[in-house]
Amino acid sequence: MNKLKKGCLIIFSGPSGAGKDTILSKVMAKKDNLKLSISHTTRVPRENEVNGKSYYFVSEKEFMEMVKNGEMLEYAKYCGNYYGTSVVKVKDELEKGNDVILEIEVQGAEQVMKKIPEALSIFVLPPSLDELKIRLKNRGTDSDEVINRRVKEAENEIALAHNYDYVIINDDIEKSVEQEFKIIELQEMKSQKMKHIIDEVLNSEKNINR
Amino acid sequence: MNKLKKGCLIIFSGPSGAGKDTILSKVMAKKDNLKLSISHTTRVPRENEVNGKSYYFVSEKEFMEMVKNGEMLEYAKYCGNYYGTSVVKVKDELEKGNDVILEIEVQGAEQVMKKIPEALSIFVLPPSLDELKIRLKNRGTDSDEVINRRVKEAENEIALAHNYDYVIINDDIEKSVEQEFKIIELQEMKSQKMKHIIDEVLNSEKNINR
Repeated sequence: MNKLKKGCLIIFSGPSGAGKDTILSKVMAKKDNLKLSISHTTRVPRENEVNGKSYYFVSEKEFMEMVKNGEMLEYAKYCGNYYGTSVVKVKDELEKGNDVILEIEVQGAEQVMKKIPEALSIFVLPPSLDELKIRLKNRGTDSDEVINRRVKEAENEIALAHNYDYVIINDDIEKSVEQEFKIIELQEMKSQKMKHIIDEVLNSEKNINR
Repeated sequence: MNKLKKGCLIIFSGPSGAGKDTILSKVMAKKDNLKLSISHTTRVPRENEVNGKSYYFVSEKEFMEMVKNGEMLEYAKYCGNYYGTSVVKVKDELEKGNDVILEIEVQGAEQVMKKIPEALSIFVLPPSLDELKIRLKNRGTDSDEVINRRVKEAENEIALAHNYDYVIINDDIEKSVEQEFKIIELQEMKSQKMKHIIDEVLNSEKNINR
């Protein structure tokens, strides 16, 4: 059975500060065959960010070269920087039967939804925009100007949340982790993914002595 | 928030003997706001069946009168008898915010999927057709001829399982109950059902002092 099983592509979006990273790291600790796709970006690394771990940090010239060569499954400009997903690694992991999570913003998500309609999509909401602003301030990595821009962006992003399959309100991190875990787990039971099992049950009929 | 919430319509199908009734009664015991729609049928009651509880038992004439008056959300002929869902009660429960389960066969399910595309649909598979035949025999309510007809019908039904959102393989009743429960629970997080919450978060922005 497992040989026939291909992994599931999962789109995971939500405003900066909604808690995507925390949810993801906890869900991934619970689930073995779940791989996080590492995006390419032209943004400057934050202090604790390592190249090839949080992101592949590349120049705008290198990024645009990849776009030109058709190596990007999706890409988008967000708060002045480019972000994109290289197609090769995603494909590899799916073929191996792993589920792959793309942590991407709404423009990129739209591109993936169009290219791969069977992808599962999840959007994380902050409980309110006030709370979002507080979280961004507490993070202490961005200037007030950047925070205000991020809250403004958040509004535009949240307005597109209805395009996603599922919406998680992150007012309690453990609850959100549990919800995301269940959503991913249930993908296994989607009828498209069960086709070979349906066939197996139908073929079992040959053994019945009527 | 709750005032805005309307219930979810759930289509639940699977061959006779797959274990639908057992799964349903256990899921309903776990979930308060889940109501089972009681079908109308022209079939003869089994020994333990009470009118208005398992089914509303009606004559073919009465049944056809309801169809003619547009009172049926769906109806179908199955193993020589008519089965149908009266629209009035379903609508009532949904308006009250309750989830409503329709335990119906594949023809009726197809009609409901067409009329109400946002309905959630779940199909229960037996582990094999052999196992299905054994379960039907053990039930001891049907003649060999009826059992053979039911197995034959089961094949036709299982061939349509891929039209449903989710497929449960009922090889372990507790596991199946848990899966069905999770599928229904997660409906609450579907983005269509979250529209008012998305709006609430967006409107919270008005309170932010920029």
